[in-house]
Amino acid sequence: MDTLIQHTRLEQFIIQVFLAMGCSSDDAKLATQTLLDADLRGIDSHGVARLSGYIRLWEVKRVNATPVIRVVHETPSTAVVDGDSGLGLVVAPYAMKIAIEKAKAVGSGWVSVCNSNHFGIAASHAMLALKEEMIGMVMTNASALVAPTFSKERMLGTNPICVAVPAGDEPPFIADLATTTAANGKLEILQRKGADAPLGWIQDEEGSPIQNAHALKNGGALLPLGGDREHGSHKGYALGAVVDIFSGVLSGANFGPWVPPFPAYVAMPENQPGKGIGHFFGAMRIDAFRKSSDFKKDMDLWIRRFREATPISKDQPVLIPGDPERACQLEREKNGIPLVESVLNDLHSIGEKFNIKL
Amino acid sequence: MDTLIQHTRLEQFIIQVFLAMGCSSDDAKLATQTLLDADLRGIDSHGVARLSGYIRLWEVKRVNATPVIRVVHETPSTAVVDGDSGLGLVVAPYAMKIAIEKAKAVGSGWVSVCNSNHFGIAASHAMLALKEEMIGMVMTNASALVAPTFSKERMLGTNPICVAVPAGDEPPFIADLATTTAANGKLEILQRKGADAPLGWIQDEEGSPIQNAHALKNGGALLPLGGDREHGSHKGYALGAVVDIFSGVLSGANFGPWVPPFPAYVAMPENQPGKGIGHFFGAMRIDAFRKSSDFKKDMDLWIRRFREATPISKDQPVLIPGDPERACQLEREKNGIPLVESVLNDLHSIGEKFNIKL
Repeated sequence: MDTLIQHTRLEQFIIQVFLAMGCSSDDAKLATQTLLDADLRGIDSHGVARLSGYIRLWEVKRVNATPVIRVVHETPSTAVVDGDSGLGLVVAPYAMKIAIEKAKAVGSGWVSVCNSNHFGIAASHAMLALKEEMIGMVMTNASALVAPTFSKERMLGTNPICVAVPAGDEPPFIADLATTTAANGKLEILQRKGADAPLGWIQDEEGSPIQNAHALKNGGALLPLGGDREHGSHKGYALGAVVDIFSGVLSGANFGPWVPPFPAYVAMPENQPGKGIGHFFGAMRIDAFRKSSDFKKDMDLWIRRFREATPISKDQPVLIPGDPERACQLEREKNGIPLVESVLNDLHSIGEKFNIKL
Repeated sequence: MDTLIQHTRLEQFIIQVFLAMGCSSDDAKLATQTLLDADLRGIDSHGVARLSGYIRLWEVKRVNATPVIRVVHETPSTAVVDGDSGLGLVVAPYAMKIAIEKAKAVGSGWVSVCNSNHFGIAASHAMLALKEEMIGMVMTNASALVAPTFSKERMLGTNPICVAVPAGDEPPFIADLATTTAANGKLEILQRKGADAPLGWIQDEEGSPIQNAHALKNGGALLPLGGDREHGSHKGYALGAVVDIFSGVLSGANFGPWVPPFPAYVAMPENQPGKGIGHFFGAMRIDAFRKSSDFKKDMDLWIRRFREATPISKDQPVLIPGDPERACQLEREKNGIPLVESVLNDLHSIGEKFNIKL
């Protein structure tokens, strides 16, 4: 049975934990917001469930709680940011704000980031653009769990792409997707249940399709969106590769099989070509293209027309990207965030370690 | 039996056809180059096979052979271009060049285009960035053939995304993909063969999975990359939607079910909210992020490492996006472009119409 906890109560706890790690007050609030965004939006794999993981990375000195984040190269519309091994949860909003400032000045801003760490959910950062009447784009690479088409070797992370687009009277369009058939968090849910995965999600260590949700632990790999060649896995592979290149190669971060692993106990890959994990952020001012009111009117029309697309079943209308997460957020802001027992125990252990009461 | 024809011979013929339509000499060459790029790269559905389609659009005055293409709104890093109903084959390189000029000036350039037509293959335009040491990005919307997840209505085009990235000693990385399980051209090949499609490519008019490759003619729809909900079709739908928004909504073109159809005999959708078809172009200068030589060195490393990823079968190494098309181009530049009988007959009819000898 899950325990429900009010997000405001969780917020105070997480802030205290980040402060205890040595984060500044501003950074602790930023990092907490990103984790809470994940839990509120129903991306449970990327919320407080990961707090202990961030702490362990800090304990082995792979996360710097007091980074000096800085722009190392820039033009009017672009920049590379060095995250100084900071929490991705802090580096990401810093970089997104630079993209937004550049978009204010010259129409769009594009920031590639090296020397960072896991940044939580991409949507949390992309949504920063919305209140500025901008489109936000966010990508990140991640440690290799995904085999390219025709390979049995893990070469790419689940490398998500998020695009957030403001609308007028309608809520914003927010697409946030791993470039794999299923995100690793979905697989973890099946692992906890002891259930099989659908074919097309994973392969075993020899590259054969497999349904055992634990196949990754035995040398298997997640599959790119598409699942197999016949169903377009080469497209999912290409999209994951683009994310890797924009995030890793363009910034001087690590890429491909060299991206640092999230679990602190996993050894770093040898012969790393770059620094830390890489991200990519973009912001485009709507009125750098069209009158904002015209765009919003058309965006409302887009959303309404797609919502009214003829459904296959009367019970399941067509969704707009972002709908399920927004519904979840409304429900959880009211009723609280459900924590599974293992996560609750994890938080209690963290509380004891830092002498903070949950 | 296919007829082989040297691309240089085909080139002269196509240029003459576009000149006969009234295109300027420059425009005729541009349009021809894009069609030839498709045939050389093996994207047979988007090459000369479409020439008669463009002519029919011109005959019904949906294509303007002498457009006054112009920038209608801009900032230092962005622009909206009105294609004046010109051939997309001409409007697209015009817009891409504006993106490139803006990237030269301020690091990146992003151009959304309205009032255009079908632009051939996206890669042809994205590759223009490569010789400038830039990353090129190209998207376009297209007439609705694709049903969003949970819908039986056609709402999106096959909406491709292309990303071209320069490397050093290695050939460039060129990903060019429809955001559907399979592009319509792949389906047309099965239709000609009378073969079935794999499950996950199409659905029938009630939204049920179907293998009959002719299902589209009976009210069916192509499926977003992923194929079904369990295999991530909501991600393919979201990606196709992003392409539609960037190309159509951001520029003031049509979007969703309102995008003009390619076949001239198909009536235009009613109550169109915008002008023509929409495209989106991006160019990012490599040295707006990193020293170009450092980037190229890392890009070469990326490509080589992925090429060496452990294959599932020794007979099929891992491919880099762009590999198959480049191999095809080398072969066809040498041996000629194979034309199926129906396309050859089509070209002869065009030749007779304009009194041009093939």
